Amino acid sequence: MVIRPYGYAIWENMRNDMDRRFKETGHENVYMPMFIPESLLQKEKDHVEGFAPECAWVTIGGSEKLNERLCVRPTSETLFCEHYAKVVNTYRDLPKLYNQWCSVVRWEKTTRPFLRTSEFLWQEGHTLHETEEEAREETQRMLQVYIDFYKETLAIPAVFGAKTEKERFAGAKETYTVEPMMHNGVALQGGTSHYFGDGFARAFDITYQGRDNKLHYPHQTSWGTSTRMIGALIMVHSDDDGLVLPPKVAPIQVAIIPIAQHKEGVLDKANALYESLKKTFRTKLDDSDQSPGWKFAQYEMKGVPVRLELGPKDIEKNQCVLVRRDTREKLFVSLDGIEDTITALLAQIHDDMYNRALENMHEKTHVATTYDEFLDIAENTPGFIKAMWCGDSACEDKLKDATGGVKSRCIPFEEEHLADTCVCCGKPAKHMVYWGKQY
Amino acid sequence: MVIRPYGYAIWENMRNDMDRRFKETGHENVYMPMFIPESLLQKEKDHVEGFAPECAWVTIGGSEKLNERLCVRPTSETLFCEHYAKVVNTYRDLPKLYNQWCSVVRWEKTTRPFLRTSEFLWQEGHTLHETEEEAREETQRMLQVYIDFYKETLAIPAVFGAKTEKERFAGAKETYTVEPMMHNGVALQGGTSHYFGDGFARAFDITYQGRDNKLHYPHQTSWGTSTRMIGALIMVHSDDDGLVLPPKVAPIQVAIIPIAQHKEGVLDKANALYESLKKTFRTKLDDSDQSPGWKFAQYEMKGVPVRLELGPKDIEKNQCVLVRRDTREKLFVSLDGIEDTITALLAQIHDDMYNRALENMHEKTHVATTYDEFLDIAENTPGFIKAMWCGDSACEDKLKDATGGVKSRCIPFEEEHLADTCVCCGKPAKHMVYWGKQY
Repeated sequence: MVIRPYGYAIWENMRNDMDRRFKETGHENVYMPMFIPESLLQKEKDHVEGFAPECAWVTIGGSEKLNERLCVRPTSETLFCEHYAKVVNTYRDLPKLYNQWCSVVRWEKTTRPFLRTSEFLWQEGHTLHETEEEAREETQRMLQVYIDFYKETLAIPAVFGAKTEKERFAGAKETYTVEPMMHNGVALQGGTSHYFGDGFARAFDITYQGRDNKLHYPHQTSWGTSTRMIGALIMVHSDDDGLVLPPKVAPIQVAIIPIAQHKEGVLDKANALYESLKKTFRTKLDDSDQSPGWKFAQYEMKGVPVRLELGPKDIEKNQCVLVRRDTREKLFVSLDGIEDTITALLAQIHDDMYNRALENMHEKTHVATTYDEFLDIAENTPGFIKAMWCGDSACEDKLKDATGGVKSRCIPFEEEHLADTCVCCGKPAKHMVYWGKQY
Repeated sequence: MVIRPYGYAIWENMRNDMDRRFKETGHENVYMPMFIPESLLQKEKDHVEGFAPECAWVTIGGSEKLNERLCVRPTSETLFCEHYAKVVNTYRDLPKLYNQWCSVVRWEKTTRPFLRTSEFLWQEGHTLHETEEEAREETQRMLQVYIDFYKETLAIPAVFGAKTEKERFAGAKETYTVEPMMHNGVALQGGTSHYFGDGFARAFDITYQGRDNKLHYPHQTSWGTSTRMIGALIMVHSDDDGLVLPPKVAPIQVAIIPIAQHKEGVLDKANALYESLKKTFRTKLDDSDQSPGWKFAQYEMKGVPVRLELGPKDIEKNQCVLVRRDTREKLFVSLDGIEDTITALLAQIHDDMYNRALENMHEKTHVATTYDEFLDIAENTPGFIKAMWCGDSACEDKLKDATGGVKSRCIPFEEEHLADTCVCCGKPAKHMVYWGKQY
């Protein structure tokens, strides 16, 4: 998949925003090699079982067959662990709060642009802590960073919580997930944060001398998000006329379209407005010789949040026309204080986009208390199902088979008591679970 | 090679600075796949001959042997060409001014940290133009961006100009290079900019309908720099006590060291200073329980441009001590207007570092007019040799063999007339060339 300039500009805006959040929470960026020797990948048993079937293997380097084949990283736990084993000695070296921006490869059989691709860009945080408590706090802290990012930057609501044991990351003791719902009711695993305990530390012999002068194994986390979030943007907000981009990541926030631009003064005024607005907003002035109608359609397709039309009559009245991409609403506003007007409008668009997506998620979330009800909802009203569960993965398997793919999404931090028994087997319920099909 | 946080922070500062320069000159970032199918790499003859021997090959994906092996990109001309063939149709689609930040792999037999590694981070620009003239202008424009970056950001002077035919990039009609000299007189190919003519366009069948309604082949360029620039920084500026970082890319520009920090008021004042300075500079306050002497050595090793010492006596006098990393000079300055003082000092440090490196380059540059003189300089005074050349690559081979590795670095844009004849064969000279050994 080629990520072209407009798509990459969205990714850059996402990346810069997240990177700021990571640095504000004390993390540092590093870069690890892209190749993992097979023996290194095999050090943690669950991990290699999870990833080996998806690996791309380098077997020839510089015209010669390699003695040991190299995996193109599907994720970098093993590389971070090998490094940590070398650089961590005492509790003074902890915590290690590292993050990496890179591309990874997973040999997918079925791909979908942005949602599931064999190669994708992502960030992967890998941290090491003195105590289980600190590591668990970090796991939850980074989940919260993701939830905030989805809400504040992408205008996307989500359910979130813990994965069931069956759905955990390979090698993790706990996996938290943020799961937004696409417009059509299908879920997307939008970002995950894992607590590993000291399993990797033991496998890679990472130890530190503690405050008690004894050797201990540190506790570890990892957390990641990817270009899949561009897919989420498209699938949550867009419509049949193209993209609808949230203002915070839109490569162009305001598109200025001069009307009757051949008339005297129009282009001058449009240019002056452009020079002024571009100091505050990512602004584009389209003074090409295409018709205004063509330009309207063009920037609608590209999802530009605000179109600004400016013609001779507007100039006479010291006004312009603002058109919202999300609602198509047309506003006639004064050119005096136009920056403040647009700032407020962009904030309003963000909030409205979030609330519409939230409303959609609520509308497409249903409660099932019996097995038949669960199957009926799964077949007829795509979306999330809230239902009680006994804790047995056999019930997850049965529900998945019976519904053609509905899986547990997460156990939310605040569970509701919907019934006393598991929706599948009727045994006493342990948890409320969000269920749904996924991309 | 693992790039740890401090090194990666240097790279981020370099990358952000260059990325701004690329965007200011109209370029857009994209992302291409990291794998190149073998058949695609083979489309341009010179190119595949240059790179195939250095490739890492993926032969197994997802447990299955691949029908066609995939090269991990050593450079991405072929991928950009395949994409351009699909998206360029008319002269209205030109120019295409794309850049990519990614990692590439070249299977090096001998590696040196930062200077020559099998995997490295880089940027590669790939542009497509209507005419030869435009493409040649772009090639020179981007060379100039590199020269400016080296001077203005890295405080590194360099010679620059055209590569001889023998030293050109695989497939290029012209290669321009920027060649800084390391402190020990050894050259480094610090960045290159290539003009390809329409060779790749013909090989990949990229055509556009021109203003004359006929089909034409566009003209192409590419240009790149890499994490090797971190190697250049180290080898140009540093000394036996560690790094000496130019202020523009130093992850920490000012390190505040409290003196007698247990005394009342010292840490309060240091903290207040830190809060104020960090708005303008990348500032670190080290209030750990290590001794001041340990801290001095630590931030010297890390190459922090300015150390700020603050003790009880300084506070009494409303002053502090600034110590330059590059010269060790100690300055007693007032705390009034300290921001302006430090801003001016950092600019002075940058200029002084540049001028010292320039002086070193001049001192280690010698003129040879005879073959014996050339060999004598090559053996006894490592550095650049300026000498005339007939234009025949046989003379380049002979000089390289006779000197144990001195190669042509570049033909500068402004050549001097040092003699009438080639320093090697005595035939009439065509060019003045800079020669030198390289990393």
